[in-house]
Amino acid sequence: MTDFSDIAPRLAEQAIELPSWAFGNSGTRFKVFAQPGVPRDPFEKISDAAQVHRLTGLAPKVALHIPWDKVDDFGALARHAADEGVALGTVNSNTFQDDDYKLGSVTHRDDRIRQKAIDHHFECIDVMNETGSRDLKIWLADGTNYPGQDDVRGRQDRLADSLQKIYDRLGDDQRLVLEYKFFEPAFYHTDVPDWGTSYAQVSALGPKAMVCLDTGHHAPGTNIEFIVMQLLRLGKLGSFDFNSRFYADDDLIVGAADPFQLFRILVEVIRGGGYGAGSDVAFMLDQCHNVEDKIPGQIRSVLNVQEMTARALLVDRGALDAAQTAGDVLGAHGILMDAFYTDVRPALAEWRESRGLPADPMRAYAESGYGAGIAASRVGGEQAGWGA
Amino acid sequence: MTDFSDIAPRLAEQAIELPSWAFGNSGTRFKVFAQPGVPRDPFEKISDAAQVHRLTGLAPKVALHIPWDKVDDFGALARHAADEGVALGTVNSNTFQDDDYKLGSVTHRDDRIRQKAIDHHFECIDVMNETGSRDLKIWLADGTNYPGQDDVRGRQDRLADSLQKIYDRLGDDQRLVLEYKFFEPAFYHTDVPDWGTSYAQVSALGPKAMVCLDTGHHAPGTNIEFIVMQLLRLGKLGSFDFNSRFYADDDLIVGAADPFQLFRILVEVIRGGGYGAGSDVAFMLDQCHNVEDKIPGQIRSVLNVQEMTARALLVDRGALDAAQTAGDVLGAHGILMDAFYTDVRPALAEWRESRGLPADPMRAYAESGYGAGIAASRVGGEQAGWGA
Amino acid sequence: MTDFSDIAPRLAEQAIELPSWAFGNSGTRFKVFAQPGVPRDPFEKISDAAQVHRLTGLAPKVALHIPWDKVDDFGALARHAADEGVALGTVNSNTFQDDDYKLGSVTHRDDRIRQKAIDHHFECIDVMNETGSRDLKIWLADGTNYPGQDDVRGRQDRLADSLQKIYDRLGDDQRLVLEYKFFEPAFYHTDVPDWGTSYAQVSALGPKAMVCLDTGHHAPGTNIEFIVMQLLRLGKLGSFDFNSRFYADDDLIVGAADPFQLFRILVEVIRGGGYGAGSDVAFMLDQCHNVEDKIPGQIRSVLNVQEMTARALLVDRGALDAAQTAGDVLGAHGILMDAFYTDVRPALAEWRESRGLPADPMRAYAESGYGAGIAASRVGGEQAGWGA
Amino acid sequence: MTDFSDIAPRLAEQAIELPSWAFGNSGTRFKVFAQPGVPRDPFEKISDAAQVHRLTGLAPKVALHIPWDKVDDFGALARHAADEGVALGTVNSNTFQDDDYKLGSVTHRDDRIRQKAIDHHFECIDVMNETGSRDLKIWLADGTNYPGQDDVRGRQDRLADSLQKIYDRLGDDQRLVLEYKFFEPAFYHTDVPDWGTSYAQVSALGPKAMVCLDTGHHAPGTNIEFIVMQLLRLGKLGSFDFNSRFYADDDLIVGAADPFQLFRILVEVIRGGGYGAGSDVAFMLDQCHNVEDKIPGQIRSVLNVQEMTARALLVDRGALDAAQTAGDVLGAHGILMDAFYTDVRPALAEWRESRGLPADPMRAYAESGYGAGIAASRVGGEQAGWGA
Repeated sequence: MTDFSDIAPRLAEQAIELPSWAFGNSGTRFKVFAQPGVPRDPFEKISDAAQVHRLTGLAPKVALHIPWDKVDDFGALARHAADEGVALGTVNSNTFQDDDYKLGSVTHRDDRIRQKAIDHHFECIDVMNETGSRDLKIWLADGTNYPGQDDVRGRQDRLADSLQKIYDRLGDDQRLVLEYKFFEPAFYHTDVPDWGTSYAQVSALGPKAMVCLDTGHHAPGTNIEFIVMQLLRLGKLGSFDFNSRFYADDDLIVGAADPFQLFRILVEVIRGGGYGAGSDVAFMLDQCHNVEDKIPGQIRSVLNVQEMTARALLVDRGALDAAQTAGDVLGAHGILMDAFYTDVRPALAEWRESRGLPADPMRAYAESGYGAGIAASRVGGEQAGWGA
Repeated sequence: MTDFSDIAPRLAEQAIELPSWAFGNSGTRFKVFAQPGVPRDPFEKISDAAQVHRLTGLAPKVALHIPWDKVDDFGALARHAADEGVALGTVNSNTFQDDDYKLGSVTHRDDRIRQKAIDHHFECIDVMNETGSRDLKIWLADGTNYPGQDDVRGRQDRLADSLQKIYDRLGDDQRLVLEYKFFEPAFYHTDVPDWGTSYAQVSALGPKAMVCLDTGHHAPGTNIEFIVMQLLRLGKLGSFDFNSRFYADDDLIVGAADPFQLFRILVEVIRGGGYGAGSDVAFMLDQCHNVEDKIPGQIRSVLNVQEMTARALLVDRGALDAAQTAGDVLGAHGILMDAFYTDVRPALAEWRESRGLPADPMRAYAESGYGAGIAASRVGGEQAGWGA
Repeated sequence: MTDFSDIAPRLAEQAIELPSWAFGNSGTRFKVFAQPGVPRDPFEKISDAAQVHRLTGLAPKVALHIPWDKVDDFGALARHAADEGVALGTVNSNTFQDDDYKLGSVTHRDDRIRQKAIDHHFECIDVMNETGSRDLKIWLADGTNYPGQDDVRGRQDRLADSLQKIYDRLGDDQRLVLEYKFFEPAFYHTDVPDWGTSYAQVSALGPKAMVCLDTGHHAPGTNIEFIVMQLLRLGKLGSFDFNSRFYADDDLIVGAADPFQLFRILVEVIRGGGYGAGSDVAFMLDQCHNVEDKIPGQIRSVLNVQEMTARALLVDRGALDAAQTAGDVLGAHGILMDAFYTDVRPALAEWRESRGLPADPMRAYAESGYGAGIAASRVGGEQAGWGA
Repeated sequence: MTDFSDIAPRLAEQAIELPSWAFGNSGTRFKVFAQPGVPRDPFEKISDAAQVHRLTGLAPKVALHIPWDKVDDFGALARHAADEGVALGTVNSNTFQDDDYKLGSVTHRDDRIRQKAIDHHFECIDVMNETGSRDLKIWLADGTNYPGQDDVRGRQDRLADSLQKIYDRLGDDQRLVLEYKFFEPAFYHTDVPDWGTSYAQVSALGPKAMVCLDTGHHAPGTNIEFIVMQLLRLGKLGSFDFNSRFYADDDLIVGAADPFQLFRILVEVIRGGGYGAGSDVAFMLDQCHNVEDKIPGQIRSVLNVQEMTARALLVDRGALDAAQTAGDVLGAHGILMDAFYTDVRPALAEWRESRGLPADPMRAYAESGYGAGIAASRVGGEQAGWGA
């Protein structure tokens, strides 16, 4: 197997974007359990996100969600981020919480509502211009609950038209990243249900439009690493939303439900050139910490990605290729599993210390007193959440 | 095929309980879209439910949810229901919206919290004593999100202990009905995930404990009518929560996603003696009308159940048995499909008119002006919802 | 609702291709149950298929599978078909039953094996030139059973290369139709798992390459009619393999498992211009009659498609569009359901009689004595099957 | 975390039964790829199985399948096994490959066929009496492909009656173990689809009847370790059929598809007292090596179970309980994951050597020349398979 020292340099290339909303309250349709110390505004969210980066060195950027993270002065927010040692990243639009969007947003039959949804994306691009963000990420709640509720074809055509208008507004160095989702909150059809639809739509737009793959947005049993391979092959993998799930879009901590799947995904990312300095693929988390603490939840998440990336880098590609060429099914499978079963944690702890980071970021956070501090100081005001 | 006139008398035996919460606002974790005219209190919910019964003759009872439907005087609520031509039915407990229940209720490791959850059920039984309700329905959100979060076995034992305490408080004519659910809001395990667990738990309690089957609470592909058959065979089918789904617990209108599945379920209900005057099985709806109007949504739902019941009653049992005995696969299947494909709607319209009901309850509601009336009059106050 | 007389002319445009292999023995890995009267050669298969067309008028073509249907003289086979009143249709290749293909065919690492698989397709095109068939349908069993077994990306590139070679051999009026399948017989990954992959591959080839949608080849819960809509929108829907399933690729009679799904699919086919004289979309069955009689199984299947097509044609598009435009969720859904619940069988029986066909083809077949005849006469020889 | 030296003694208690049929040819409905050296008779199968035990010390028993392993003299077969260092284990019945069983076996409407299926089980008990086997394992292919094909309730009652007759024939130290399966080869319903049905059936029989849990026989997303917990809690877990799957009943190498799931299962086995000397739970493999070599496939499988058992034994139960009691979600989860991510392979290699076993059984097998030997010597005769 590849030696850890050989892969160590590549680990430094890893950067995972944190979602600002992971630090706010979240829950299910049944209940949102509030937690003490939760941020009351985007500035506090960024401070929390910065803790994750400070302890892991893995999370230099924070993704924003508009309007949840709307502030009067995005320049001030960017400076606050810089002061905390991080930067502002992807801007996420929201066209699912206005009453007008009950039956659709960029796909709506009503010209007024469709234009409103397009305008919202223009506003997001304005924010990007202020924050210097590269990516506009579009996840749509558009869909229907009942067969016949709307004409699915017409919606697809209007989607294409709306996306074109948004695309045309992008700056030269900006990208549009279109997320797909199998279901929820729409329960009969969603307008971008699978990678094929996202791929067909962004291909029609042009080179600055890419697909976003959220690991929790697939049908049961879907081979996600295959999609990763395919999108990299087609040059259209824009970004990841990492999380994990046992059932639907559970939004659990990445790697918690099926660590081996995360490994396989990262193996294909590396295989396809999606990892590291030379790649434009953005790695983001998109999770909900409904019952666990949020900041350590994010620390655990980026560590999971890092540990699994290390295992994926350890795969002995030469030996693997030889076994595959020989048609040695068990041998080739065994070479892959050998990397997966390697315990990279001690080497990673050393690696961290060599870079001035705590060997055990989870413990370092627990001992830092930061959690108790924000619980004590953030009294009053309204805790951030999804505003659902 | 059986003639409609032969089954008409049996149709009069149908009674479907409506959930009070179907008339309040509901939605997803992303957004609850409020609707005009939504009730502000349990009295208004019951008035709305009574509209459904008035127009269809199918929905003589309204299920309550505690604490959502808590009132100072349940006797007054019962009288209001009677004035409106309906009665109060099943009482549903709620142990998922108090902060104490974040990690569990009747399964919680903490004796205090567990007792609090048990006491809530005692309170529900007190309500039942006031309202004359027969059934206490227990759906638990208990579960965990991460492997290792709790000891699943210990939770199961505590569940048994808590249920026993609740069971012991039941009156002679009261029942405990335990619902199971595959997932949500817990995303790694739920403490009552399948009919087997509910069956094992209620069997340990005694004859007054039964299983509740919610049609949306199963793994993908589950043959639900088989479970209906099995629970009837074992004498443990207590009640149905009807709805439909394409993906998870979508809570769509019953019969909307897979009408043929609803037909097969009702065929087994009738086959197993679960239908009509001689049966104790309770038929309830449990749906969310997130994007459609709520009262007509409920009317559509009870009509769907009625139409499908009529089709199920039309199955020519004699011919079916003969074909099955002969091993005639296509013949037997064809006899079943013959009933399914029969358009019972004209005959049902006549049947309704013969009983003083409108031929087309959907149209009758639209023309009644009731919807516009409540939209105009129910101004101010706080609309009912799930309080999530 | 639209009147039956308005849609009757369009019903005459319907043509469903029958698979020759549906008349041979089939089964599962556990057992193939042989049936009396099963054909011993392609000529007998075509005679059986011709019975279906004779009684229904719906099935004018028979799809061949090479090598299962290999004969010395395809011209003779074509003449036999013409004598029986049908024609030869799509040619299906087979690269899954030669020992060389254990680890792959057109994706294999070994140049020799890959060329062998390509050559087999050249042979199929030769057959097409003899039979006058338009479509070469490619379903690949290629895939792996274990992570690491092979390099998935390399396989995809070799797939593209092989398909290009095959595509280049097509005549001007011939098409390549690439089928996708979620899983089986490969159990970790398949090389063409979803419509997106098939679409990306055929788009790279050119206008004569299209996607084949088999209704049983999707992940649980997949909205198939959405894919139909999308492929028609993109101009890439080449053909259907109709069947139905409750679980995996069960290959049951089309419409048997979820009639409402078949209805929704046909609604989108018609909506998207995929039905009738002006369309190039090929409609085929691909089913296994493991426990039911094969010829009546095929009759039942084409009738199911016809009945559901009639219902789909009955949808009142004008009223539907109006309700959708008004945002009337229940109204629009109701208009769709109105067509689905209409019993078109009596009108179709009349329509058949008006065209000299038996009113009840199932009964006509049973009374024809054909089944008993072939059971008595086809004695000796080896019954056709999959040769697995 | 627990130290390896503390768990080493418990590892010696592990025993995994091998299925004789794993050494024969297997495949899918599309193709069975024969392999060189495959056994021609039960004696050769047992010799192959003995290789696995010789190199791992983990597989002291071989399960038989009747009639596939029928021999004139089971005493001679038992002596052959003893000579090879193994013993004969569970006897598996087969009621799915006789033409009579096309529509059912122990559930069949026809008394004659039902009795024939019961008689087959009597014959299996006779074999058990000769071989000294404890367990009669019953997996039924019974089910239907089409709604209406048969009366599901009647089948369930006949199933109960047939099982009772078989149960009554058991000796005092013999057990009946009833397997359940979600689907395949039946595609609409199976007569024992879930653990609840198996549990209800065996509970009605008595203490010698138990449930068999095959890890590949569940609906997508099913939490299998929960079922393990529940069956152990109810005292009804008789045996495991280990394998793994990505989709349906793929019968891949145990631990290959989702290693973390195997870990969680074994954690619950140990938690519930199902592991080791004091437990009656039988651990078996039930896999198909369709594309990989069979003997190393079985070696890989028992090693996977052993490695995962070691990890499960390493869980620090005290610390886990403390974290769970404290409601520390991330802490408790982390303690579990700590054991999972521990690389136990070096310690297990040492442990093996300390017991006179090869450190690396896979390599030892490759270097043994056994595979080449049987490929060379087993020429002529008919290779064993499923006879489908």
